[in-house]
Amino acid sequence: MSDEATTTSGRFITFEGGEGAGKSTQIGVVADRLRTTGHEVVCTREPGGTALGEAIRGVLMGEYDTPMPPMSELLLVFAARAAHLAEVIEPALARGAWVLSDRFTDASYAYQGAARGLGDHAVATLEALVQGERRPDRVLLFDLPVAQGLARAGKRGQGNRFDRETLVFHERVRGAYLARARTHPQRYRVIDADASRDVVQARIEQALADL
Amino acid sequence: MSDEATTTSGRFITFEGGEGAGKSTQIGVVADRLRTTGHEVVCTREPGGTALGEAIRGVLMGEYDTPMPPMSELLLVFAARAAHLAEVIEPALARGAWVLSDRFTDASYAYQGAARGLGDHAVATLEALVQGERRPDRVLLFDLPVAQGLARAGKRGQGNRFDRETLVFHERVRGAYLARARTHPQRYRVIDADASRDVVQARIEQALADL
Repeated sequence: MSDEATTTSGRFITFEGGEGAGKSTQIGVVADRLRTTGHEVVCTREPGGTALGEAIRGVLMGEYDTPMPPMSELLLVFAARAAHLAEVIEPALARGAWVLSDRFTDASYAYQGAARGLGDHAVATLEALVQGERRPDRVLLFDLPVAQGLARAGKRGQGNRFDRETLVFHERVRGAYLARARTHPQRYRVIDADASRDVVQARIEQALADL
Repeated sequence: MSDEATTTSGRFITFEGGEGAGKSTQIGVVADRLRTTGHEVVCTREPGGTALGEAIRGVLMGEYDTPMPPMSELLLVFAARAAHLAEVIEPALARGAWVLSDRFTDASYAYQGAARGLGDHAVATLEALVQGERRPDRVLLFDLPVAQGLARAGKRGQGNRFDRETLVFHERVRGAYLARARTHPQRYRVIDADASRDVVQARIEQALADL
């Protein structure tokens, strides 16, 4: 779908990056900014975004006697995503709203495809099955050295199954995100998140200017 | 995998059919019978079979404000199945056990593929992704007229999201199962479940005799 073809409908912007990169804070800032210019804005997150999605999020973040098989993790993420698309994202875009999502399918490529080792093909298969042609109009990748991001996330006291992964795991996530940014330059904008909130905000504004 | 190739490893038998067809009762009878002949037998069920699978079963059977999108339902079933295969089915077959499962992927073709209208292709895509070449050695389809099965299921007081579906839905399930039995005659055996327990048991024995 070209930018030209979608100018009359909504925009789908996703916020990606490792733990502690500041996505969640910035999504609120962008939403407020867009609302002052008269846009309807829907803020949402993955996994989650619907009642079913939040129930699935609970299963994903749960603790079990045996490690969760990576393929189960990937399928759970897409089960939540199918509901998220059907109930939230597609209806909002259809009525012309801007949808800002804290993570989307690029996170599946980084976490399950790369860091868990399932590979791009498994993720791409599910992406085609669940999303058809739907892709974000822009992916904002909040990039930060891993140790710095984890230190920030730790400060907030968040310790879920993913936060507790090894440094190697988080390095793989970061590497996969940056590799996708290089292979999808039209869609991706890398935001260097190692800066003050105001500077990061200015960088986001620039990254969305053409939309 | 030919029958000849698997004689030294375990056997994977699945019990399929609509509500109230008596699968769960008969699975216990078959297990007892096999154990007396010295086989290790693992009885399991879908969705479920593992701690993660039972958590996913809870999500699947849950009630939400909006109907669950069929694609989410299908992906949840396969998320549970991936764990079921990795933690229960494959290890059991590898050590030579017989695995008896109350439902497996043929149920996905009948319920989500046919009755929910997702189509065979979506189910086949996930089957290939999650199972590779793994298929049941034998599918026992317990067939019963829909009204009769629902009356039996109702008697047992089970009223989950699936039991409460329309008669048309359950007719689609039955039709899809019977169609699959016709297209997979090597693997499928249709057991007419409208008979006394002893007669059904004799039919099962015959249906498994060549294994």
